[in-house]
Amino acid sequence: MSDPAAAALPVAIEPNHDEHLVAAVEEAGGRVVGLDEARVLVWIGIVDDFPELPDHIEWVALKTAGIEEYVSAGIIDDRRRWTNASGFYAENVAEHALALLLAGLRQINTAVLRHWDKQPIDTAVRSLHGSTVAIIGAGGIAASLIPRLTASGARVIAVNRSGRPVEGAALTVPSERLAEVWEQTDHVVLAAPATAETRHLINADSLAALPSHAWIVNVARGPLIDQTSLVTALREGGIAGAALDVTDPEPPAGDDPLWSMPNVIITPHVANPSSGLTRTMAPWLAKNIRHFVAGEELIAVVTAGSAY
Amino acid sequence: MSDPAAAALPVAIEPNHDEHLVAAVEEAGGRVVGLDEARVLVWIGIVDDFPELPDHIEWVALKTAGIEEYVSAGIIDDRRRWTNASGFYAENVAEHALALLLAGLRQINTAVLRHWDKQPIDTAVRSLHGSTVAIIGAGGIAASLIPRLTASGARVIAVNRSGRPVEGAALTVPSERLAEVWEQTDHVVLAAPATAETRHLINADSLAALPSHAWIVNVARGPLIDQTSLVTALREGGIAGAALDVTDPEPPAGDDPLWSMPNVIITPHVANPSSGLTRTMAPWLAKNIRHFVAGEELIAVVTAGSAY
Repeated sequence: MSDPAAAALPVAIEPNHDEHLVAAVEEAGGRVVGLDEARVLVWIGIVDDFPELPDHIEWVALKTAGIEEYVSAGIIDDRRRWTNASGFYAENVAEHALALLLAGLRQINTAVLRHWDKQPIDTAVRSLHGSTVAIIGAGGIAASLIPRLTASGARVIAVNRSGRPVEGAALTVPSERLAEVWEQTDHVVLAAPATAETRHLINADSLAALPSHAWIVNVARGPLIDQTSLVTALREGGIAGAALDVTDPEPPAGDDPLWSMPNVIITPHVANPSSGLTRTMAPWLAKNIRHFVAGEELIAVVTAGSAY
Repeated sequence: MSDPAAAALPVAIEPNHDEHLVAAVEEAGGRVVGLDEARVLVWIGIVDDFPELPDHIEWVALKTAGIEEYVSAGIIDDRRRWTNASGFYAENVAEHALALLLAGLRQINTAVLRHWDKQPIDTAVRSLHGSTVAIIGAGGIAASLIPRLTASGARVIAVNRSGRPVEGAALTVPSERLAEVWEQTDHVVLAAPATAETRHLINADSLAALPSHAWIVNVARGPLIDQTSLVTALREGGIAGAALDVTDPEPPAGDDPLWSMPNVIITPHVANPSSGLTRTMAPWLAKNIRHFVAGEELIAVVTAGSAY
């Protein structure tokens, strides 16, 4: 090209010029500019600070996988393209889900709190190998989690909207038949976005249908679980335990019974650590900028109506 | 057969008639008898209670994978065959090793102790995917652990005696070159028997050579680690953490500094839970009895000189 400046895509990174993302933009042949000159906005701030968008913004790249706050604030419009980070953090979140499930089954939390209390721990340890795990929400997290689970000798039931078979799953069930899943599984991993449909999908009914040895892992969003019913089931032995990276509200109140239950593990929403987020996002942003410049389809396009 | 009683192999199960093993013996075509009539002894007691063996005992099946106590007590002789449980519990132990490693990397222990202390936990979480894990001792546990680690996106260095390439490992190093491994790995899993050669293989030198972000997992035997040097390295940040299912002594003393270190996870020797041991052993015993009756090679033969 004779005029490289004209060829370089003007990209705004707001509200701050994160070093990993600046490097990604420049590596992909873009240049970082202010919002008033940009054709693309990479937004790494919080939803409350989201700016008024000039008409010349053709694409907004959000840093999060969950976009429910942007949807309910009416920010996602149909005048430009929007992408989220769906799939970018899947390896990390899948790894955390496996860590939580194994920590529960192998009684790591109990061992940390009750030093060498061998007899009760020995009899409570359960194996992932030979068990069945249902993954609710068959997106990127499920795709990363399934090979980890099958390598550990577990069988996977995937639940998605369409019921279209998910690779590596022994069985795929459409979400409209979710109620049939509980009795067929040993454990549950929640990996679906928060939508009206997924709200409280773990409730008194599903908890009653699950076996008493079941562990529930939530790496998705707190509102997928009716937490009052969960506490009751955990207290009465309806299920074996819950390992939660997300809660409702977040964090739970200081006097929430979850904090003192021996069969609960809570990590503070770190399945995809914020501290490493832009570093993980950077290669994906670079790839998407190349797609945009080339007029190709963007990765992780979302609309206000997007759900799992 | 015209005389089924004559065909049934007489097997003693001592010191008690465990239901899972009685069923296994009978299923394999044996009959359970007293030690005075038996050709085979299945010993599920402790080493101190091991009986005087009549000459007509041709094979002793031990329930443990580690046989160092039987070796040092001079019990294992060359007048009959001996088998241990090497490999029988490998899936279980490999699963526990993975659970411990992930619990450390994902800060599950910290999260359990420090409720929603988000910022320090978020910045301390590390990923197994993209890391290198060295497994010391390339027997059944390693064979079960390698596919679990590679499915999680980790690269494996296997260390064995011969240096003969181990399936699934990116690199196999002979134990005589163990000192070269520490600088090449991110994390270490100990899965070798306790022998004179493996004693204190984690010591001040290996701890100094490991990277400061390293986690050490021990699912083998406590004496593989020089625990005094370990405590020093953990205190001074020489390594990131230790997740131990075995210690030296076992359990650690109540005032052992390991108990109060934030970067230590201790489970009470439950990688292969005692409570489920004979159930897990039963199908292997049935298989070995069939081999014995057919004059075929036994699984897991050991001698007084056996080592990894």
